[in-house]
Amino acid sequence: MRTARTNEGWIAVDWGTSNLRLWAIGPQGQVLAERSSSDGMGGLTPEGFEPALLALAGDLLPDGQLTEVLICGMAGARQGWVEAPYAPVPCPPAGGAPTPAPTRDPRPSVRILPRLSQADPADVVRGEETQIAGFLATEPGFEGTLCLPGTHTKWARVRDNQVVRFRTAMTGELFALLSTQSVLRHSVSTEGFSETAFTEGFDQAAAHPRELALDLFSIRPASLLADTSPEASRARLSGLLIGAELASVRDYWQDTPVVVIGAAALSQRYAAGLKRLGAQVRTSDHPALALEGLRAAQARFAKERT
Amino acid sequence: MRTARTNEGWIAVDWGTSNLRLWAIGPQGQVLAERSSSDGMGGLTPEGFEPALLALAGDLLPDGQLTEVLICGMAGARQGWVEAPYAPVPCPPAGGAPTPAPTRDPRPSVRILPRLSQADPADVVRGEETQIAGFLATEPGFEGTLCLPGTHTKWARVRDNQVVRFRTAMTGELFALLSTQSVLRHSVSTEGFSETAFTEGFDQAAAHPRELALDLFSIRPASLLADTSPEASRARLSGLLIGAELASVRDYWQDTPVVVIGAAALSQRYAAGLKRLGAQVRTSDHPALALEGLRAAQARFAKERT
Repeated sequence: MRTARTNEGWIAVDWGTSNLRLWAIGPQGQVLAERSSSDGMGGLTPEGFEPALLALAGDLLPDGQLTEVLICGMAGARQGWVEAPYAPVPCPPAGGAPTPAPTRDPRPSVRILPRLSQADPADVVRGEETQIAGFLATEPGFEGTLCLPGTHTKWARVRDNQVVRFRTAMTGELFALLSTQSVLRHSVSTEGFSETAFTEGFDQAAAHPRELALDLFSIRPASLLADTSPEASRARLSGLLIGAELASVRDYWQDTPVVVIGAAALSQRYAAGLKRLGAQVRTSDHPALALEGLRAAQARFAKERT
Repeated sequence: MRTARTNEGWIAVDWGTSNLRLWAIGPQGQVLAERSSSDGMGGLTPEGFEPALLALAGDLLPDGQLTEVLICGMAGARQGWVEAPYAPVPCPPAGGAPTPAPTRDPRPSVRILPRLSQADPADVVRGEETQIAGFLATEPGFEGTLCLPGTHTKWARVRDNQVVRFRTAMTGELFALLSTQSVLRHSVSTEGFSETAFTEGFDQAAAHPRELALDLFSIRPASLLADTSPEASRARLSGLLIGAELASVRDYWQDTPVVVIGAAALSQRYAAGLKRLGAQVRTSDHPALALEGLRAAQARFAKERT
């Protein structure tokens, strides 16, 4: 039994595959500190999570007090700190009961938010549900589609503050693998971009998505035979992949408002593509939706306790 | 000026990205020796090709004689021994003038066969043209499509002993990257196979190729939520990629005979898929079509000299 008194502040944690980001929240909800490290889930064994948390936030945990730590993201994966159950859609994002994670240190009381699952088509959301919850906290009652571009881009249909259905596309991971590990790496730069080449690739793949595997390879001969620049090849690769993705999720963006959430440059590419296809789209410029989602969940738990 | 007398035998070389394979051919066309090493183009600088050839075949080059060495494949790439020009289709495969490669050793007279190029859609063949030439040497007058599965699968339309047009799909490279480097590696075995899972994946992607990027990711949640076996996930990944590829090259296999050329297991998968889609398909079980193609080219050059 932990008998220490409870700290009125708490710690919000977004624990991804590659990074760990956290915020110390004061009793009035103010952000007292914001920190991040590269101790993502991908590089940790289950025993490594508590040391990684303490290394980044140990000094934010007062002695003799119990401080609540609420985590979203990959810390709840099977290879994570402790596996958090999936909440099947339709359901509110980040809405179910959190899973306690064991600690040796007596100061933190750690809990991990549930992820989302879908039976058919089989799919999972592991982390982004908190950004969705954060978006719904800032725009309650939004009805439409949220697009969260990234390594695994998520498309979520939202209604009545619930996620109704969702799909995941591997676009970001395919871009990274193809541009750095495949034969295309000889043709594709690591930086730079060409709007024209992006748009040409996008239009081609959006109109003929079934030819993607052929169009991807064509980047190599275009640079061999026509001296296409590495920056144009990079932009064309991005355009082809995003164009094919948008063609595959037409039922998510057709005839419904779309909000793109995420890093500015990538969000702009998705938004530009969606506009070309006639979608009604805007981007969200909120800097920390995951924090808003963690706040909303923490507030609900506090309410449930009273 | 090289004044040495000429050896009536010669050496045929298939120099790929990963491997080097060669045959010593006697005056009557008999194979005197067959050797291979892992000195593929991918691991060599331009200066490394002659030493790699001599390490494998130096003892097959008699002193005081000039021995012809005819090479096909990636030794003629821009990063290879010397860049061989591309022959634009339509043209006979391995049919143009070979490019001499410089040597310090006086014994070998090295030449590299041209590759194939296509302007629109931009595409290149770099090595497989010799297998195509070998197939046409064994079946002169064949009219239809040749499918050469591999890291980069080639589809070549052949008529009047010429390659009329061709396309390349990155299917083999995508399978390797996704199964070993992407998030799917957690779900996919390195060995084993399930015919049922292959067929299910194939049918799904062949019918709905535009949903490939979504279907690929679904392998991960299927193993997380439904405990799909790693062997079934591996077969499903293969089926999805080959199904989508076949949908993208419909004009290569519809209403025309198809011959699949290459390693037995992979050729069988392509042939099975093509049959499911109603194509008229068979596999070639010739063990060394590249050698037959090199023989045909060498015979033509000998004829041109007389």
